[in-house]
Amino acid sequence: MARSSAGESVLTRAVRIFEAFGPDATTLQVTELARRADLHVATASRLVAELVSHGLLERGPEREVRIGVRMWELASRASPTLSLREAAMPFLEDLHAVVGHSVQLGVLDGDEVLFVERLTARDAVVNYSRIAGRLPPHITSSGHVLLAYGAPDLLERVLARPLERYTPHTVGTPEELRASLAQVRRQGFALLAGHVHEDATGIAVPVRNGLGEVVATMSVVVPNDDRATAQVPALMAAARGVTRALCGPRADRPH
Amino acid sequence: MARSSAGESVLTRAVRIFEAFGPDATTLQVTELARRADLHVATASRLVAELVSHGLLERGPEREVRIGVRMWELASRASPTLSLREAAMPFLEDLHAVVGHSVQLGVLDGDEVLFVERLTARDAVVNYSRIAGRLPPHITSSGHVLLAYGAPDLLERVLARPLERYTPHTVGTPEELRASLAQVRRQGFALLAGHVHEDATGIAVPVRNGLGEVVATMSVVVPNDDRATAQVPALMAAARGVTRALCGPRADRPH
Repeated sequence: MARSSAGESVLTRAVRIFEAFGPDATTLQVTELARRADLHVATASRLVAELVSHGLLERGPEREVRIGVRMWELASRASPTLSLREAAMPFLEDLHAVVGHSVQLGVLDGDEVLFVERLTARDAVVNYSRIAGRLPPHITSSGHVLLAYGAPDLLERVLARPLERYTPHTVGTPEELRASLAQVRRQGFALLAGHVHEDATGIAVPVRNGLGEVVATMSVVVPNDDRATAQVPALMAAARGVTRALCGPRADRPH
Repeated sequence: MARSSAGESVLTRAVRIFEAFGPDATTLQVTELARRADLHVATASRLVAELVSHGLLERGPEREVRIGVRMWELASRASPTLSLREAAMPFLEDLHAVVGHSVQLGVLDGDEVLFVERLTARDAVVNYSRIAGRLPPHITSSGHVLLAYGAPDLLERVLARPLERYTPHTVGTPEELRASLAQVRRQGFALLAGHVHEDATGIAVPVRNGLGEVVATMSVVVPNDDRATAQVPALMAAARGVTRALCGPRADRPH
């Protein structure tokens, strides 16, 4: 089953090892890891040992392997999203205190929405996003905002693929999507009622950097009822606050 | 200047490239990156190109290089700290709303304290921690908690190195450190007034998993005055909440 690894670089194989992990597979034995990464067990074992030696993977008491804290640290400490997350967090908190349910910060990565922060209440309405989780842009309010203000070729790539419906309300045709994006540009926010789950409404607004470019979205997921639009002003105010924080002087960082 | 790379693995060099970035160097030109990573420019260029092709690095408009969002995603989505951070966040928020200033979540990585979450107020007292930042354990309240409940060989390794004083109050001798850890174990929390900075007091409590093992610390950094101890009960209650959340049923995660 394992593919010939001739000509394939060590880095490519290392990336496949990391990709084998996921929210439902946070620890793996090496044989399972090799199977998921489509590598010979011997190749996987050797790579895992080296990744463990760098702290990028860690081994548990049963020799199961998981992603190392060191990997997260290397990725985080100079991440372009760290300053965004730090600038946004006080506003996400305020919004969460007022709105309850779920509030989240999304960015575009590849052609998908990647959620980089999320605060959620214990009794929140159902929400399929998660931190470091991705959703296709056509189903979520954040995706509609990122598409509405994004590069035209992004929209073309999204339209080139089938638009899967999650509920009967999900946008499923290019015409529906283009109409929704035009509305987002007119009103300055996206409100999608029941598009991901019948019970939930997503509302997203753009977060702009100092140049006016849309770099992220701030969104809430609330119950699908006629009070959802009431959240829009608070969201817009919070997004403006993030822009201000992104442009302002950096917090003190002596080390 | 560049070291001979004979016998050095691709992964070792890739790790050095990521290590070259930091909070004060979030983007680097390849020549500077090569210098910091102690690699030949040609070697660095080749590696950077491959890392860019995987999305682990990204190139900006001036060909400057930064750490890619994909790297953060690979590290985060199955990270052992993600469930901890998600479980802790509502309690960090509540604590932050009550205490103000800075609240943070720390874990032990290697022999250092790594801060994996942090909420801070705009007018907070000075605090040297940052998300994905590290501090030596002997100077911080989180470090004293992790040492007090950690493996004995961890303490031996910390004591084997010089204990640098950041202020006249910082623990600077093995005797002082052992005395502080004994007090932590007696009272169940660490309170260090003026150890990192004269103006600030750090207070940390242990966060335990379902097995009673200390897996993290929850801490606040408040002004160095006689009201600091008033924060202890709120901290302890929050830490218990995190333990409960870590043990409880997982939030719904359909995808």
